Amino acid sequence: MLLNVQKIVEEMERSGLDGLVATTAENVLYASDFWSIPLWTRRSSQNFAVIGRRDPGNPVIVLPSAILDQVASQYAILPRIRRFGAGLAKLPETAPDVGTVEARLWSLLQTPQDPDIIAALAAALDDLELKGGVVGIDEMGIHSDNWNRLVGAAPQTRFVAASSAFLRSRSIKTPAEVERLRRSARIAEDSILASLKRAADGVTDVELATTFYQTTIALGGVPVVGSIGIGADSAMAFSQPSGRRLRKGDIIRFDVGGRYEHYRADISRCAVFGEPAPKIRTYHRALRAGVERAYDMIRPGVRVADVFSAVIETVRRNGIPHYERSAVGHGIGIDGFDYPELSGSSPAVFEEQMVICIETPYYELGWGGLQVEDMAVVTRTGIESLMTTDRDLIVV
Amino acid sequence: MLLNVQKIVEEMERSGLDGLVATTAENVLYASDFWSIPLWTRRSSQNFAVIGRRDPGNPVIVLPSAILDQVASQYAILPRIRRFGAGLAKLPETAPDVGTVEARLWSLLQTPQDPDIIAALAAALDDLELKGGVVGIDEMGIHSDNWNRLVGAAPQTRFVAASSAFLRSRSIKTPAEVERLRRSARIAEDSILASLKRAADGVTDVELATTFYQTTIALGGVPVVGSIGIGADSAMAFSQPSGRRLRKGDIIRFDVGGRYEHYRADISRCAVFGEPAPKIRTYHRALRAGVERAYDMIRPGVRVADVFSAVIETVRRNGIPHYERSAVGHGIGIDGFDYPELSGSSPAVFEEQMVICIETPYYELGWGGLQVEDMAVVTRTGIESLMTTDRDLIVV
Repeated sequence: MLLNVQKIVEEMERSGLDGLVATTAENVLYASDFWSIPLWTRRSSQNFAVIGRRDPGNPVIVLPSAILDQVASQYAILPRIRRFGAGLAKLPETAPDVGTVEARLWSLLQTPQDPDIIAALAAALDDLELKGGVVGIDEMGIHSDNWNRLVGAAPQTRFVAASSAFLRSRSIKTPAEVERLRRSARIAEDSILASLKRAADGVTDVELATTFYQTTIALGGVPVVGSIGIGADSAMAFSQPSGRRLRKGDIIRFDVGGRYEHYRADISRCAVFGEPAPKIRTYHRALRAGVERAYDMIRPGVRVADVFSAVIETVRRNGIPHYERSAVGHGIGIDGFDYPELSGSSPAVFEEQMVICIETPYYELGWGGLQVEDMAVVTRTGIESLMTTDRDLIVV
Repeated sequence: MLLNVQKIVEEMERSGLDGLVATTAENVLYASDFWSIPLWTRRSSQNFAVIGRRDPGNPVIVLPSAILDQVASQYAILPRIRRFGAGLAKLPETAPDVGTVEARLWSLLQTPQDPDIIAALAAALDDLELKGGVVGIDEMGIHSDNWNRLVGAAPQTRFVAASSAFLRSRSIKTPAEVERLRRSARIAEDSILASLKRAADGVTDVELATTFYQTTIALGGVPVVGSIGIGADSAMAFSQPSGRRLRKGDIIRFDVGGRYEHYRADISRCAVFGEPAPKIRTYHRALRAGVERAYDMIRPGVRVADVFSAVIETVRRNGIPHYERSAVGHGIGIDGFDYPELSGSSPAVFEEQMVICIETPYYELGWGGLQVEDMAVVTRTGIESLMTTDRDLIVV
């Protein structure tokens, strides 16, 4: 299970919520383990997962019958559902063999069918005995007309916006989440190394990026657009391949990471093609020192804002006196930017099982950009890197 | 320009709107040609593009200074912007050479800076003389607290939900959009053909899918999760690779398509590994006949619902008497499911420059699935396919 049951109950208690409705692909996954492809790929799509405070590990998924095959393939033991609309598949006359995906889809298609999405959602609220209670809705994913229809369909229930309850709960990862993030980070590292194997005089950033993304796919990841910049382009935070050719002395900056089983990576490693100029070496060492300062400090209870200040100060003292940033990292999980942001104004403290990106990017227009970014998990007594490569400047 | 200026003005007039605020990555792209990577990849990100009815081709983009490098790289001639927050790059002491991406970023960073995102958005509304008017907001992408803050910051202006104005405008494609969709369809076709070259006894669906997605990347596309199912798995509408091995007689069903310059493909072709059983041939021929019936009928002014009925009737008459569907296609553009849906209850008529997917999927639990899906553009007098492969069942 991906859901942090203890933490979501805490968040529901804190906000006085009896139930929660997940509406985005991310929060539906988090609340129910269900990954809805249409919800992820189509702006118009809607489906939900509802959890009650009394037993959050036992959600009800609300979805069109047309996507029940995804439930049948994703679960060995079927979750509770509320569905609407017709199924897509012609059914055989007799039930398929028990234990097959076909048998699971068959049995899902025997469940009662609600008249429409809002009736199905209201029925799910009833299933969880949430009628008359206070229900938080993840306001980031529900269409506003559906919210209004729901209020009409469940007049005794009070609905409040509650995306933040999901965000705060998601910041404290379960072991299953950490393992996905670890694998996702590894795929990104291996994709960088594969891409760098193509480095040669005159190779284009397009070729480097193609190898990067193809490797991510070969390793079981799903590409997410990253930043791969060479030479002066590395100074552009979101540098995209433009056909620029690699030349001796160029920086190659990767700020990248795809998804593995829906969990993101976001890491940075930099290389130089040929002998690095002294300024590149000095600046990279300063940025690395900043990240390593964070590793030295972080443990549960330490203030995010204190780490931020220390990281900036460390980079300045180690070779980039004019270094400026508004943040030196962020949480990461199903979304690439999860709670908390590692900024100077953050009221947050580090907590055990947070997975965070620690980063010290530096961009200088006309010269280039350098960056060190690690993923790491906060442990009971400190912090553990999820990386397998060191933080050195790579020379290729 | 991607925006259909004439159509968006029509939609604004119809809804009594003086201006429109795009809030999703899709509509920001549509309104301004600007593709915002953070808006696309991070749930928390917000930026906007604002257009006025008097000159919709001259938008104001509202964004954090941190992503101005994307504006500098995407435009040769800079658009109007309103920005907030600090830029990321250290600037050189003197302006970079004119005409470079560095010079454009430099000049963007000389523009005035608003205190926050809502102040910047309100300033953009003032730039377009929308104060006191009626402004439609694409409600699908703005965070609800930002909507509330905007109402407070611009009390003389009336704001209404207006996603539907974008959706209706986007249904009538400009020539620039059709060319992107044509290329996107071609990449998907070529990726299917490359994947099928790997067909062999015992090859897994994972291997077929890996080749499919890697080819999409090699051809300049961005993968989007599709459905690639073999054997009985092809009956699952959203079949995902599971390690199943290809055997003689198996169907291989592709329902796939990535993005090319942000425009989607969604096509289907089916193959059989070895000699197809007679039922596969008959059923596939019936499904193809349905799609071809749509080609025969569609021209501007024809009712969508009439085409739906004719397609269903054609499939039934040609070999699948129990054929049932709720829709036989949909618009396609920046989103994979654009307006209109080709359903029996649609009030829409076909219009020139609509790009549509025409599809007749069939799923039979325990047997398999077959599908024909084309992308096509409605012309002045009929309809033109965007496909280069024929609609035959492929034998490999």
